[in-house]
Amino acid sequence: MGKSEFELIDWIQKHSQLQDADVELGIGDDMAILAVGGEKLLVTTDMLLEGVHFDLNRCTLAQVGYKAMACSLSDCAAMASVPLAAVVAVALPNHMSMKEAQELHGGLQQAAKQYHCPLVGGDTTSWDKPLAINVTMLARAMGVEPVRRSGARVGDAILVTGELGGSLQGKHMNFTPRLREARALAGLADLHAMIDISDGISSDLNHICTESRVSAVIYEDRLPLSAAALAGKDPLAAALHDGEDFELLFTVSQEDSRRLEALWPPHWQVRLSVIGTMEPPGNESESAIVLVRRDGRREPVQPGGWEHFRG
Amino acid sequence: MGKSEFELIDWIQKHSQLQDADVELGIGDDMAILAVGGEKLLVTTDMLLEGVHFDLNRCTLAQVGYKAMACSLSDCAAMASVPLAAVVAVALPNHMSMKEAQELHGGLQQAAKQYHCPLVGGDTTSWDKPLAINVTMLARAMGVEPVRRSGARVGDAILVTGELGGSLQGKHMNFTPRLREARALAGLADLHAMIDISDGISSDLNHICTESRVSAVIYEDRLPLSAAALAGKDPLAAALHDGEDFELLFTVSQEDSRRLEALWPPHWQVRLSVIGTMEPPGNESESAIVLVRRDGRREPVQPGGWEHFRG
Repeated sequence: MGKSEFELIDWIQKHSQLQDADVELGIGDDMAILAVGGEKLLVTTDMLLEGVHFDLNRCTLAQVGYKAMACSLSDCAAMASVPLAAVVAVALPNHMSMKEAQELHGGLQQAAKQYHCPLVGGDTTSWDKPLAINVTMLARAMGVEPVRRSGARVGDAILVTGELGGSLQGKHMNFTPRLREARALAGLADLHAMIDISDGISSDLNHICTESRVSAVIYEDRLPLSAAALAGKDPLAAALHDGEDFELLFTVSQEDSRRLEALWPPHWQVRLSVIGTMEPPGNESESAIVLVRRDGRREPVQPGGWEHFRG
Repeated sequence: MGKSEFELIDWIQKHSQLQDADVELGIGDDMAILAVGGEKLLVTTDMLLEGVHFDLNRCTLAQVGYKAMACSLSDCAAMASVPLAAVVAVALPNHMSMKEAQELHGGLQQAAKQYHCPLVGGDTTSWDKPLAINVTMLARAMGVEPVRRSGARVGDAILVTGELGGSLQGKHMNFTPRLREARALAGLADLHAMIDISDGISSDLNHICTESRVSAVIYEDRLPLSAAALAGKDPLAAALHDGEDFELLFTVSQEDSRRLEALWPPHWQVRLSVIGTMEPPGNESESAIVLVRRDGRREPVQPGGWEHFRG
């Protein structure tokens, strides 16, 4: 359609009515925030499509169900919120058997149990097309102010959990949403901005820069490359641009950054890496992200993650 | 797949974890009910598929957007709840232009404004398959106990709003969700059970009978046939079995039924019809619904509405 997904989202954001007093935050972050009964209620919706987000020749239906829940759980983590409940709608291919539909449900249910987020409702329909599955998840703030994309400040340290790149080699079907880590980070530090890496760090860090009106400098030698990225042809490109890492990317003050590094529990076996610093905004024509290579060269990084719309 | 959609829903209901203290009502009604901050929060999700729920050769994309919202608004009406906010996920065909995507959004937004239910979040993706659109809607009880399917009592009058049958001739793309009527009914009477007619009255009244463990007698001469049903070959069958009427079907005491008939505002131009009575449950082998024909003959009615799974 010649326009990127992000341009459409920009347009929708401008043309959606958000004056309702109960809406604290609308389209454009990982979750919307509503005020319900004095509580902050968060909501996210994600559609997964056969052939786009999963390949049934390379994974089981149970894995698809797990991934559908885990993507939304990762959004809950990105806001440092606590999952409350989920509803699921599926469009099943006509040829799918009852047993296969139950296998899909088993994967959904596994994630629901593991992360204490019960499935409370759904919609089942079928057609002569591939599988589509949509999860909408509700979450609660539970005493932690939801962390938005827009709060990064000049001088902040930029951190990331886990390892980056090569997720499509396997991790994207069985990743661990960083719910535990997000709540721990929010308890230990004042998180200024956070996002989960779904489109690749070059896109998702760019979202934080745009929403926070800052720019970013990141360092090649600090990027935590995954084994899958290292096994590929271009580990650096994989770490920057591969989609579906589902790690947390966030910014805090330098002081908080040092504290987090010191306090981070090694037995969690999840790395915590400081990858760069937030800088003042540059010219609009410039890239919001600069990568400092191992030899000291500075290179602009264009958002190059996984966009579903292609021109 | 040889099993009906309802059988799968039964199976899912049995195999979903619902012990969470915050979940008041799970899978199997028009909306799930959660306890959030001392309030009752309701949630429903619905997926609409090109070629199943709409035909782009016979409707506009704006109508598709409107219908996607209106189906969920009708679920809110069925629980006598007040819409709070919606999130929308779309799978757009690759060939769709930015202008077409905006037209779809225009229809969603029209319903959002008309029924005071802001769009607060979404997910946009694309594939080389037909359009799929999923709406998840949140609603509040706002002082009215949500009306379930399970509360019908022996002796209750069975009532229906509007007219029945022939919705696929046009109404299904531009119907009015009965939000106003539902809140008025809940204010004027003690609603024992309610559902919106999405699969046809023979299926949806059967849901109330099953959930409430009662049976129903309805009268041919009291069924409010729509002009579209009357223009067809078999108006009675259309009124009983056609899907997507999106009218309210509910039960109240005989006393409340008389009061509702007396108080119903004629200027609303929405009919209110008493179509039958709730009876004690019959044998399991019998149909839960009996139709009394104009000549006094009693005929069992099998659930025959629109099921998306076909064997």
